Amino acid sequence: MMDNLFADRVKGLKGSAIREIFKLIQQPDVISFAGGLPAPEMFPAKELAEIAQEVLLNNGTTALQYSVTEGYGPLKEIVKQRMDKAGIGKKEDDIAIMSGGQQGIDLTAKVFLNEGDGIICENPSFIGALNAFRAYNAKLFPVTLENDGMCIEQVENILKANNHVKLIYTIPTFQNPAGITMSLEKRQKLLEMASKHNIYIIEDNPYGDLRFKGQDVPTIKSMDQDGRVIYVGSFSKILSPGLRLGWIVARSDILQKVIIVKQVNDVHTNIFAQVLATQYLLKYCIDEHIKKIRALYGKKCGFMLECMDKYFPDYCEYTRPEGGLFIWCTLPDRYDSVEIMKQSVQHKVAFVPGNTFMADMEKPCSSFRLNYSTMTEEKIEQGIKTLGEVLKSIDN
Amino acid sequence: MMDNLFADRVKGLKGSAIREIFKLIQQPDVISFAGGLPAPEMFPAKELAEIAQEVLLNNGTTALQYSVTEGYGPLKEIVKQRMDKAGIGKKEDDIAIMSGGQQGIDLTAKVFLNEGDGIICENPSFIGALNAFRAYNAKLFPVTLENDGMCIEQVENILKANNHVKLIYTIPTFQNPAGITMSLEKRQKLLEMASKHNIYIIEDNPYGDLRFKGQDVPTIKSMDQDGRVIYVGSFSKILSPGLRLGWIVARSDILQKVIIVKQVNDVHTNIFAQVLATQYLLKYCIDEHIKKIRALYGKKCGFMLECMDKYFPDYCEYTRPEGGLFIWCTLPDRYDSVEIMKQSVQHKVAFVPGNTFMADMEKPCSSFRLNYSTMTEEKIEQGIKTLGEVLKSIDN
Repeated sequence: MMDNLFADRVKGLKGSAIREIFKLIQQPDVISFAGGLPAPEMFPAKELAEIAQEVLLNNGTTALQYSVTEGYGPLKEIVKQRMDKAGIGKKEDDIAIMSGGQQGIDLTAKVFLNEGDGIICENPSFIGALNAFRAYNAKLFPVTLENDGMCIEQVENILKANNHVKLIYTIPTFQNPAGITMSLEKRQKLLEMASKHNIYIIEDNPYGDLRFKGQDVPTIKSMDQDGRVIYVGSFSKILSPGLRLGWIVARSDILQKVIIVKQVNDVHTNIFAQVLATQYLLKYCIDEHIKKIRALYGKKCGFMLECMDKYFPDYCEYTRPEGGLFIWCTLPDRYDSVEIMKQSVQHKVAFVPGNTFMADMEKPCSSFRLNYSTMTEEKIEQGIKTLGEVLKSIDN
Repeated sequence: MMDNLFADRVKGLKGSAIREIFKLIQQPDVISFAGGLPAPEMFPAKELAEIAQEVLLNNGTTALQYSVTEGYGPLKEIVKQRMDKAGIGKKEDDIAIMSGGQQGIDLTAKVFLNEGDGIICENPSFIGALNAFRAYNAKLFPVTLENDGMCIEQVENILKANNHVKLIYTIPTFQNPAGITMSLEKRQKLLEMASKHNIYIIEDNPYGDLRFKGQDVPTIKSMDQDGRVIYVGSFSKILSPGLRLGWIVARSDILQKVIIVKQVNDVHTNIFAQVLATQYLLKYCIDEHIKKIRALYGKKCGFMLECMDKYFPDYCEYTRPEGGLFIWCTLPDRYDSVEIMKQSVQHKVAFVPGNTFMADMEKPCSSFRLNYSTMTEEKIEQGIKTLGEVLKSIDN
């Protein structure tokens, strides 16, 4: 109608294709490997029910009144202790609670990116972050994701050739969608490069706690000596995504700017949820809880890989993640994963086509993402078998 | 340090002075008329405690899992029914749940305002909204607030002289900070003018339900025939601000854009809070609850005005609100409310100086805002008496 009044930044913006797919596949008989949802049987609903009642009866005014933008003090303190243990955060750094990691990414972009400024990202990468950057009219500089993380030579070439790049966005650990973990060497190089070119790194780490195999690699933030890294953490995969709780660790001058734009964005994060999480973290050992989640995802991932080995055609390549939620599957170039998706959905199996996660979403992509965290083993086997048949039938 | 990398939009941005004052006056012996907090004794903490437990035990997966960006269906339905009753929303309109009214304002601005675009606002106005617009590098066009709402002639002159104005932001009912309600005639004229000049109105209505005197005036949105008004509602003043629940009613093409930027902002509003509010609204009569809040605020406001009549010097003028949370007090031009505030705080009484709410915050302002919703009558009398003495002492 009168959409010529919309700001340039949102004119071309589309909703997440994943969320559209969600709507398509909400029939109960669809086997969906499309989502990125944590396993709901791992939500500590019973424990939270008890705590919620206590909080509202004993501390209702705090939990229901307006609060401070930077986050509930006791929750910040607990997060700080966890971060300290992981070597994250120096004395120049501070912590703020966010309404989910997504808000941390969005507001960091808002604080740094003028229209047209550049941001380097892995290709493929998390669509929620890419769309957040697009919504500031930023220029995405995609970098090939190799088996040990983003291609550092490409990063260097981009930085040499472009003055207006301000940020690097990376999910170094159990990347979404690829499930890949960046090597220590590349993490160090990325940090050196950020220093050398005076730019910043957003380290998005929602899956870091979900390792079920192999050895931990230090976070980029833990090696950060001069405040180059804005670290984004999340309670979504270790406690509950519905509560929308995340945090940022960053140099305090950067964090102050983020807090100011948060103040005009949502005033503060739901304080009832913050008090609830605090009491849960004080009363229960979340590391014990995380152990159970890891064991479950490790089992499901291992089982899905077994099924893929058994039912997928030989030319199909896929990552073998050591943690997180996703397997990334790549076919020879002649395949288009959107076409495969369409046929697969007719056989009641869903996944997310790879182009969704690419800086250029229009270009056909022969890769796709599989999620293993929510389906039962029975459905995993049935779905992977069906998908294998679809792949083979396309081949003929 | 390296803040030259910050985006232009946040370089000059300051935090809300009110929130800074909050920190100053958190000593328990300060009588504060500075906040805008709802009376905590009105929070239905006991009822919510019971519902919270039920929700988590019986519907934990829904309340703790990821959810849809536009909001929880049953909550949208209840809000829709309330809006229908008030004549708000035509068939072209739709509703989305927001993380507080503030998010609705912020994201509407994001959807419309390119850098440098203009937005007309009342002067004084709500600082949270003004700062949200500033954070998109928008140009504020302040319009004098008269006793029956914004000066329509000024609005017209601005629209005639400037091409890049896209929005009018108004709190027509029990305005923050002035407590003023816009007349029906001005509401109609504003709407006509928006149509004529092809621009949009953000109608921010967090206080509309809090009338304790006089007759309701129709909302601008209820008279909106061609989708000119983006209506922002809030549960903060009728249920709880800590839960961060608000909503938008707008033409669906506009709402779709808001939902897309919300998706990259916080994915969705805390779903536990949404389910909690839904169950509360189904189980209890919120209109009965609102009646109690109105009665309390009416009593407190009347009492504060009585005290002001008794203790304030004659040359002090102030609004006599029929609802909401605020009285706006104006001294002769020679006074500077920041200076009065400094002296007043030394006598342990706090309020917010008027310049805080002005488009030009640097200019001295002889007005200030008083809030009556949280203090006891005893403290109201003591504080207003002290403030009256401060005013008289400055005069000498």
